[in-house]
Amino acid sequence: MHDLNILGNNAKKAALLLAGYSAKQKDKGLAACAAALYDREEEILAANRQDIENAEKNGVSPAMVDRLRLTPSRIQAMAEGLDQITVLSDPVGEVLERFERPNGLLIEKVRVPIGVIGIIYESRPNVTADAFGLCFKSGNAVILRGGSDAISSNKAIAGLLRKALSDEGLCPDAIQLIEDTSREVATEFMRLNRYVDVLIPRGGAGLIRSCVENATIPCIETGTGNCHIYVDESADQDMALDIIENAKTQRLGVCNACESLLVHEAILAEFVPKLYERLTGKSVEIRAGERVFQIVGNVCGGLKQATEEDFQTEYLDAIVSLQAVKDTDEAIRHINRYSTHHSEAILTEDTENAERFLNGVDSAAVYVNASTRFTDGFEFGFGAEIGISTQKLHARGPMGLKELTSYKYKVRGSGQIRG
Amino acid sequence: MHDLNILGNNAKKAALLLAGYSAKQKDKGLAACAAALYDREEEILAANRQDIENAEKNGVSPAMVDRLRLTPSRIQAMAEGLDQITVLSDPVGEVLERFERPNGLLIEKVRVPIGVIGIIYESRPNVTADAFGLCFKSGNAVILRGGSDAISSNKAIAGLLRKALSDEGLCPDAIQLIEDTSREVATEFMRLNRYVDVLIPRGGAGLIRSCVENATIPCIETGTGNCHIYVDESADQDMALDIIENAKTQRLGVCNACESLLVHEAILAEFVPKLYERLTGKSVEIRAGERVFQIVGNVCGGLKQATEEDFQTEYLDAIVSLQAVKDTDEAIRHINRYSTHHSEAILTEDTENAERFLNGVDSAAVYVNASTRFTDGFEFGFGAEIGISTQKLHARGPMGLKELTSYKYKVRGSGQIRG
Repeated sequence: MHDLNILGNNAKKAALLLAGYSAKQKDKGLAACAAALYDREEEILAANRQDIENAEKNGVSPAMVDRLRLTPSRIQAMAEGLDQITVLSDPVGEVLERFERPNGLLIEKVRVPIGVIGIIYESRPNVTADAFGLCFKSGNAVILRGGSDAISSNKAIAGLLRKALSDEGLCPDAIQLIEDTSREVATEFMRLNRYVDVLIPRGGAGLIRSCVENATIPCIETGTGNCHIYVDESADQDMALDIIENAKTQRLGVCNACESLLVHEAILAEFVPKLYERLTGKSVEIRAGERVFQIVGNVCGGLKQATEEDFQTEYLDAIVSLQAVKDTDEAIRHINRYSTHHSEAILTEDTENAERFLNGVDSAAVYVNASTRFTDGFEFGFGAEIGISTQKLHARGPMGLKELTSYKYKVRGSGQIRG
Repeated sequence: MHDLNILGNNAKKAALLLAGYSAKQKDKGLAACAAALYDREEEILAANRQDIENAEKNGVSPAMVDRLRLTPSRIQAMAEGLDQITVLSDPVGEVLERFERPNGLLIEKVRVPIGVIGIIYESRPNVTADAFGLCFKSGNAVILRGGSDAISSNKAIAGLLRKALSDEGLCPDAIQLIEDTSREVATEFMRLNRYVDVLIPRGGAGLIRSCVENATIPCIETGTGNCHIYVDESADQDMALDIIENAKTQRLGVCNACESLLVHEAILAEFVPKLYERLTGKSVEIRAGERVFQIVGNVCGGLKQATEEDFQTEYLDAIVSLQAVKDTDEAIRHINRYSTHHSEAILTEDTENAERFLNGVDSAAVYVNASTRFTDGFEFGFGAEIGISTQKLHARGPMGLKELTSYKYKVRGSGQIRG
């Protein structure tokens, strides 16, 4: 059996070392890792060919095989990703607050790494390098558990990153890979509280549910997005068409894509036929609620009827649900009921409705007159992203380097005792 | 069966209302609640007498009965606690960051309530009012699950707080009590992810372990403290004796009390006999490691021998463990191995060792030349405290009103779409 306690203990020790590394040391390590990916591309490709062969032998779908496949350009992207992280500023050591108490105690709240981060992910082997890079720059040791499909690729990548760190005199246990990809070991990993400070699942809704259900380690839920766009009575309708087309079709399979549309009933008859034309032109199927049908069913012949389930669904596909609402408040209520609390937008020229929506919608990112597709660490200017949190504890929305840190209080006294 | 889903749904609705309350509304509600505690003291005392009678009938220990007992002065303290919260500033709505992206998107990171907070606690009925006050001021709805011993008191308190809110035109579901105190319902509560955003256990190590083990809701671990004080070679020894006496004996049963002492081996022969005299004068038993015995065993006749288990123990009693270390690094290693990561102190006149200790020790609060007893929301100037987090996610150390909040991103655009 794979002894997770040994990995955990190694990671804990590594984390204490990493917490003391300077930004310069970490950047040198990352640059060496990027160089190793370039230099040893052939090894990675060979390992990847093995994974691809196995996948094809096991009848894995072509889409999945594509996610698994590494090419020279994909390896280059991994290396560039690590190089880009060297440019970002090191969050560790930042003094977040500093105050003196009446008794003379000087209290500093200082940003520190979280410690040991566990990541469970599915078939994409690039996560191995990407997740390591962000964890390393923020001073955290990472334990990775990738999918069985990509095990050869992951072993090759993790192995050469460890070697590169070691050659730089840095601790190789900053990255460790769990090589036993059985479900039992994954469950054991989720309960490794003694060593792991946080678990971040990266993958589909099933993986995330399994982590929330089984983990005793604090877990950050990421990346499920049933995102809404509400078109208010006062919306600029041309702008609305452009934004909706972008949010729905610019990339279908991503968590910040729009999955559900709400339209003010006063503009339904005017706006929905234009919307129908625009979206069907992009091969998007519209599933509309009862109230929409009553008004535009006769002019938009290809509208499908939505069920209750449609309003709860993150399609990740060329489908969108559509419902009529009587005002901003009804839109807010609908969203707070059906949304996964990721990203929602109001399209309106009415400032009061905009503010009402911004305050009333309980989601990580709430937009006025912009596409939901901007909820993303790069688009927010964080320079990197480990995922998009849809929970409210610790971090919400895009998680960059800062969101991979905690803090501690340093308290300097001169003999103070409590009375 | 108690339908937790109804409670959860009520709380979720209440949370959306509370998020929109102004500071003034919340303070008026809190003041009305405080007044109700004064006015209806007799009802609370009558309900409490029932709990006390039951406890005595069930052979509950006198110490536990005392924790359960309410008196006019304890009720007054609850009311004053609520009044004091009205003075604290409202954290909700604070703009944490504001930045414009090159594409013109204006992004604001704004502090918002977490939403619905679950609190599981043991016998002290004052938690019912205290926890409600902090959750309410920070805009959160709370669902409370207290111990069965205190159920009559808790029902009386929660009932009158709900009435007071309602009379002020505020949502009574801001506070709800789970009246079924069975273990099954507690476990079900810990898995109410659909409605509850975070679970905060308040009680002993067993309760906290049970929450971590069973909860699928994100859980904040609080309040276990195996706190260390390290006396460096250069320490001012008189100051050290005062600080250690304070940290160990000022209050025995609290999480920030000192439970373990480390002494530099160079001063062992000189310092430990003085320490022994000071602590035995306060009836504290010292359990010393092997290395200490070799040097001072003959002069401190009453020293007990420590086992490995002692170094892992939070006594919450008049006992302290003692070990010799050869330098600051060994002290740091010992602490990082045995500590619960709550509060630790170095006593030293050497700035370099102080900084080494502040950086190297992986705990929520790390002190130089002060008592560990200061790790506390009031002593840190937060004005209130819901608990002291010993985990690294979300909040670390004392948790006041700010630590009961999350944030959202408000993004204002003018038609931006993603290219």
